[in-house]
Amino acid sequence: MMNDPSSQTDARPDSRQSDQLRPVVFRNDIAPYAYGSTLIEWGSTRVICAATVEDRVPRWMQEQKVGGGWVSAEYSMLPYSTQGRKPRDISRGKIDGRSQEIQRLIGRSMRAAVQLELLGARSIWIDCDVLQADGGTRTAAITGGYVALSLAVQRLLAEDKLKESPLAQSVAAVSVGVVKGIPLLDLCYEEDAAADVDLNVVMTSRGEYVELQGTGEKTTFGSPALHRMLELAGNGVAELVKLQRDAIEAGANRPGPA
Amino acid sequence: MMNDPSSQTDARPDSRQSDQLRPVVFRNDIAPYAYGSTLIEWGSTRVICAATVEDRVPRWMQEQKVGGGWVSAEYSMLPYSTQGRKPRDISRGKIDGRSQEIQRLIGRSMRAAVQLELLGARSIWIDCDVLQADGGTRTAAITGGYVALSLAVQRLLAEDKLKESPLAQSVAAVSVGVVKGIPLLDLCYEEDAAADVDLNVVMTSRGEYVELQGTGEKTTFGSPALHRMLELAGNGVAELVKLQRDAIEAGANRPGPA
Amino acid sequence: MMNDPSSQTDARPDSRQSDQLRPVVFRNDIAPYAYGSTLIEWGSTRVICAATVEDRVPRWMQEQKVGGGWVSAEYSMLPYSTQGRKPRDISRGKIDGRSQEIQRLIGRSMRAAVQLELLGARSIWIDCDVLQADGGTRTAAITGGYVALSLAVQRLLAEDKLKESPLAQSVAAVSVGVVKGIPLLDLCYEEDAAADVDLNVVMTSRGEYVELQGTGEKTTFGSPALHRMLELAGNGVAELVKLQRDAIEAGANRPGPA
Amino acid sequence: MMNDPSSQTDARPDSRQSDQLRPVVFRNDIAPYAYGSTLIEWGSTRVICAATVEDRVPRWMQEQKVGGGWVSAEYSMLPYSTQGRKPRDISRGKIDGRSQEIQRLIGRSMRAAVQLELLGARSIWIDCDVLQADGGTRTAAITGGYVALSLAVQRLLAEDKLKESPLAQSVAAVSVGVVKGIPLLDLCYEEDAAADVDLNVVMTSRGEYVELQGTGEKTTFGSPALHRMLELAGNGVAELVKLQRDAIEAGANRPGPA
Amino acid sequence: MMNDPSSQTDARPDSRQSDQLRPVVFRNDIAPYAYGSTLIEWGSTRVICAATVEDRVPRWMQEQKVGGGWVSAEYSMLPYSTQGRKPRDISRGKIDGRSQEIQRLIGRSMRAAVQLELLGARSIWIDCDVLQADGGTRTAAITGGYVALSLAVQRLLAEDKLKESPLAQSVAAVSVGVVKGIPLLDLCYEEDAAADVDLNVVMTSRGEYVELQGTGEKTTFGSPALHRMLELAGNGVAELVKLQRDAIEAGANRPGPA
Amino acid sequence: MMNDPSSQTDARPDSRQSDQLRPVVFRNDIAPYAYGSTLIEWGSTRVICAATVEDRVPRWMQEQKVGGGWVSAEYSMLPYSTQGRKPRDISRGKIDGRSQEIQRLIGRSMRAAVQLELLGARSIWIDCDVLQADGGTRTAAITGGYVALSLAVQRLLAEDKLKESPLAQSVAAVSVGVVKGIPLLDLCYEEDAAADVDLNVVMTSRGEYVELQGTGEKTTFGSPALHRMLELAGNGVAELVKLQRDAIEAGANRPGPA
Repeated sequence: MMNDPSSQTDARPDSRQSDQLRPVVFRNDIAPYAYGSTLIEWGSTRVICAATVEDRVPRWMQEQKVGGGWVSAEYSMLPYSTQGRKPRDISRGKIDGRSQEIQRLIGRSMRAAVQLELLGARSIWIDCDVLQADGGTRTAAITGGYVALSLAVQRLLAEDKLKESPLAQSVAAVSVGVVKGIPLLDLCYEEDAAADVDLNVVMTSRGEYVELQGTGEKTTFGSPALHRMLELAGNGVAELVKLQRDAIEAGANRPGPA
Repeated sequence: MMNDPSSQTDARPDSRQSDQLRPVVFRNDIAPYAYGSTLIEWGSTRVICAATVEDRVPRWMQEQKVGGGWVSAEYSMLPYSTQGRKPRDISRGKIDGRSQEIQRLIGRSMRAAVQLELLGARSIWIDCDVLQADGGTRTAAITGGYVALSLAVQRLLAEDKLKESPLAQSVAAVSVGVVKGIPLLDLCYEEDAAADVDLNVVMTSRGEYVELQGTGEKTTFGSPALHRMLELAGNGVAELVKLQRDAIEAGANRPGPA
Repeated sequence: MMNDPSSQTDARPDSRQSDQLRPVVFRNDIAPYAYGSTLIEWGSTRVICAATVEDRVPRWMQEQKVGGGWVSAEYSMLPYSTQGRKPRDISRGKIDGRSQEIQRLIGRSMRAAVQLELLGARSIWIDCDVLQADGGTRTAAITGGYVALSLAVQRLLAEDKLKESPLAQSVAAVSVGVVKGIPLLDLCYEEDAAADVDLNVVMTSRGEYVELQGTGEKTTFGSPALHRMLELAGNGVAELVKLQRDAIEAGANRPGPA
Repeated sequence: MMNDPSSQTDARPDSRQSDQLRPVVFRNDIAPYAYGSTLIEWGSTRVICAATVEDRVPRWMQEQKVGGGWVSAEYSMLPYSTQGRKPRDISRGKIDGRSQEIQRLIGRSMRAAVQLELLGARSIWIDCDVLQADGGTRTAAITGGYVALSLAVQRLLAEDKLKESPLAQSVAAVSVGVVKGIPLLDLCYEEDAAADVDLNVVMTSRGEYVELQGTGEKTTFGSPALHRMLELAGNGVAELVKLQRDAIEAGANRPGPA
Repeated sequence: MMNDPSSQTDARPDSRQSDQLRPVVFRNDIAPYAYGSTLIEWGSTRVICAATVEDRVPRWMQEQKVGGGWVSAEYSMLPYSTQGRKPRDISRGKIDGRSQEIQRLIGRSMRAAVQLELLGARSIWIDCDVLQADGGTRTAAITGGYVALSLAVQRLLAEDKLKESPLAQSVAAVSVGVVKGIPLLDLCYEEDAAADVDLNVVMTSRGEYVELQGTGEKTTFGSPALHRMLELAGNGVAELVKLQRDAIEAGANRPGPA
Repeated sequence: MMNDPSSQTDARPDSRQSDQLRPVVFRNDIAPYAYGSTLIEWGSTRVICAATVEDRVPRWMQEQKVGGGWVSAEYSMLPYSTQGRKPRDISRGKIDGRSQEIQRLIGRSMRAAVQLELLGARSIWIDCDVLQADGGTRTAAITGGYVALSLAVQRLLAEDKLKESPLAQSVAAVSVGVVKGIPLLDLCYEEDAAADVDLNVVMTSRGEYVELQGTGEKTTFGSPALHRMLELAGNGVAELVKLQRDAIEAGANRPGPA
């Protein structure tokens, strides 16, 4: 991370510089019955990311005789993850529109990291359950989800269920935004609520874009702001990619299920 | 529209140039009981866009005592809009994830055009029902939705229910993508299905961004492709804004409901 | 239509005689991806009727090894079809009892027109979406649905998918009622709301009954009123049958989907 | 009932004449916690009919400030009422289309018997649960429902909750049909399954029509068949009205709930 | 039943002794289309219990290739079974938590009576619909459900569909509780509502336990109260077993469905 | 814990004695936005237990004007908590019968610990999400749920929202069962799957019963087995109560939300 004084701002609630990530820590193997799992702690945001494996592909792939495997994602906020209890989807009888949108985004992002034809006829589920929500839960889910996915692939390789890794590049995500006119990296909840513009960027370890989702509900934004945000995001993702690599190399600290 | 020969490509199914929109026509007042409505015909894509008005705001605004009005959107594909019948949401018991994501996008885009505090304590619903889907239904819904919204505002002004227009700028949307390595404006279905990258851009008449949604599920994309796509989109939206203006000036051709 | 002065009444909102239909126009091919479609405009009532074809029969026919094909219908009111927005079924989580009853009626009426054993192992869906509701939407849906069905059969014959038309007779429907003691043909919304008795009559081109649905919630009715209503309906349907024939002969004005 | 030899037919499974009802018996007070209840046994068809009272009106009446009371109905087939178990609606997650249609019919029929403005601000629910289904369950539900309703009104009068009976006339229903070309009164299941035409007739004790629902899915029908069916139904209902009167006079044989 | 004066109490609303059951009567064959059925009248509690047979096993048994048959139960309270109408599950869109819990209990209890491997590849459904609820509906459902099950087995044996009875022992259930400090057998609704402790006991004809469900929501309870309640329940079940035996021997009084 | 050699058994998968609990550890404050939370690790079973507070009571309490507060519980298994992914309730559209039964049990157990009239007009939700399921998840949820509840009460007292603790006694739960004829304390998954009898016992710190739920689906059980199981459970709960006390005294290690 750069310590460029010009990027400093007094406005951030936790005194971060405008181009500074919150601390990110991975606690692998939080859910040992999953094939791979990690608890990502990103500032005060905490998301349980778990990869489970099923030896079949979705019905549409069977029907359309598409070869290879599939990766899909589910995202949910635990009721106690927010200040003020959030009722469960099942109590409301339907999944939240926002959650559904996020889980589709996570799914697409994960599939961008995987060569599905090398996965065999199996599905990997990436479940992301938010334990604490302080902004950036979707980017934490993607960044942690990739770690869980990698740990699951490690195990599949170790168990000889895969001969070759289907992972060609890593995928990470970060939010950027404009708050009181200043482009900032990695918004916490307080900043996110005050942001004029919010842009979620999913990128690969090679620096290419996977997804861009920018919204200016409070105000619209011009090209210069867009370019500065993309620059901040690029640097942030590069840093996350390194943290992911370390977490994956550390691996799961126990044997898999019998 | 530019006739730049360098932008020509043999590949487009309808022989368009890479920076050329499909023809766009608005047929206003398709649903006369709505406050404003238009049928947008955009190439072979057809979307019914209708704005209806309710003299109350959503419960959360009442509870949180937020002043002003609200605009929300619903998006649905009629079962006969695709080749091969698409079952209705109600038959499946739940709204389609993709539809829900699109209607949230339309809602945010419409709200970007409106100064909600000038709307009074009322809600405007923008309903977008796809009659024929040949690619770009969400961008057609936004572009046509804004016309329906403007016609509804016209009538509210004419009926003295509004003293001042809450519309400060128009909003339109277009898709851009990369197909076989070539950035193209306004993908039809056949192009969309073959695209490596798909980017939906919502912009204002002032040339600022409202929403950016870019996905590279088939491949990732770098900065140069992103910049070219943004340039194509900017020109496309500028053209759409003019067509919208003409349609709104033509107005609804009949008196409102009693 | 008769111009019998004795049937005149000052009471009708649009100055029609008691035995006079509202003007009925068919706009074929409103939804070109359907196999057959028409927009029926019946006074101010407008219903999109579309016939789509699937190359399979419902599960119960498969399980019970019933030969031939099937025709079913769906009916829905678009949210902007009424004065005052009508929420979508999917927002309420379940289909409206009235809609369900109407779509069952449309389905039975369509099947009365078809020799199912000549249809082959395929299903035809008749989707009826109300664009504007000014009374008589169910009878418009049946009358327009039959036109959409006929256009679809035309195409199946033209494409050699059918050797012989399964349509032996046409089916049309009209409402009759008693308003302020006077039997009237073809009630508009204002009349329907004031009617003592409401009778929907579905008949064939041969003058036989397919369905009779008479309700006297506001008051009961005796034999003389019933007989006069049946007479009015018989004449109305005879007129509709001619209009259907013209619309079907005009045919769809474009080639089908590839 | 007439013993007209010309109406005789060998075809009926239980040797009835064409204009003969099956035996109808009412067993009042089958569900003592209801305000009024009866088990109607109509041939092998058995329906539990129960009227319960709530001291409030539906929300729409409150909102629209409609005075008086309301009567609504629910109809359900118990899973063991058919040969071959019928899964409960709740297992399928939604109410059966046919059941919904029938309960709307029962509700309208009951309301035709009641002067709602004399009911006070209360709702009466008529629940009809089919214990055994051998044809004619909807007409049994209406005929028995009226008895349950009358018993409930008796009690409301006895308890001084009503000063005046809101019941001005009784309502009963019967099915008629055409089987192998012969018009028949009161079809049992075997006849119903074989019928070309099926007509349900709801009438008052004064011989006026409340509802007519005729369907000719297997074939269409002309005026002569319609007239003969209406004649059979009129006689059948007249007989049912007498049986209802006796059952209501017998009354409930125990005191009401405290 | 013992006439032990020390067990006498003035407190019971119907003057029963503390160890005395309410009168229990079985009316077999209440639903003749079921394979076996009975109406159990237990004091003022009335439950329709019906056993229906399907010639297939649940999907999970098919998939896991488990041999033998299955028995499952459904429990529902009819809307008029309580003082104050209870809305149907289907109106609320989901099954009541309490009902679901009870039907799982009934299912387990019935399966305890059956040697599933002797049942053949068929399912028996035990449907329990409460007609009148005055306390103890779940124990009445189990006690009556076993009678319905036995009658169904009788018929299967008579029809040679079973060679050998899969029933090795009978199962019955009773509630016990502590009311104002006094352990009581078989609580009626008034007692149940006032009870400190409520214990439902399911036992076999051999005096062994199948299920114990004890709840002390109002207060907790110690060992002495538990032991006295178990003693009361044991005697109550012994008595019920005799009544069941008589009802089963009386049998169904008519031939089964063709 | 006793080290009685006579209770030794070779059969337990983890070499425990028949009367020995698995190790139980509480990790408080796992979800800092909750009012109180703990992760209970009980052998390989892990359950997140979180207490959140709402300043209102359920609607039925408002309507019936019941004073005091309320405690309710929700229980859910995370999809990766089992070997083989368990689909989320929301994917199936309804809550699992077993989960619903368990959450009702947890709710009753928590309420047994609380003097609701001392809670003020507020609701406490106890959410229990299973992270890893190796048998005994419901007893872990109750035992951990009480710790979360106590931590929440601590905070309410510290914040002066409560003047007096509404907790008069603690509540804990343990399972006992009979496996291969031997009564065992605290069954793990492998034992639970093989058990003839399974009994869940909820008790207070005073040694009284709150709930007893015993099931003998595989076989029935007599009095001696019941008595031995109750004895084992009593000792197990006594031990758990001590562990709970230590965890509660350790308290939450950080300040509450602002």
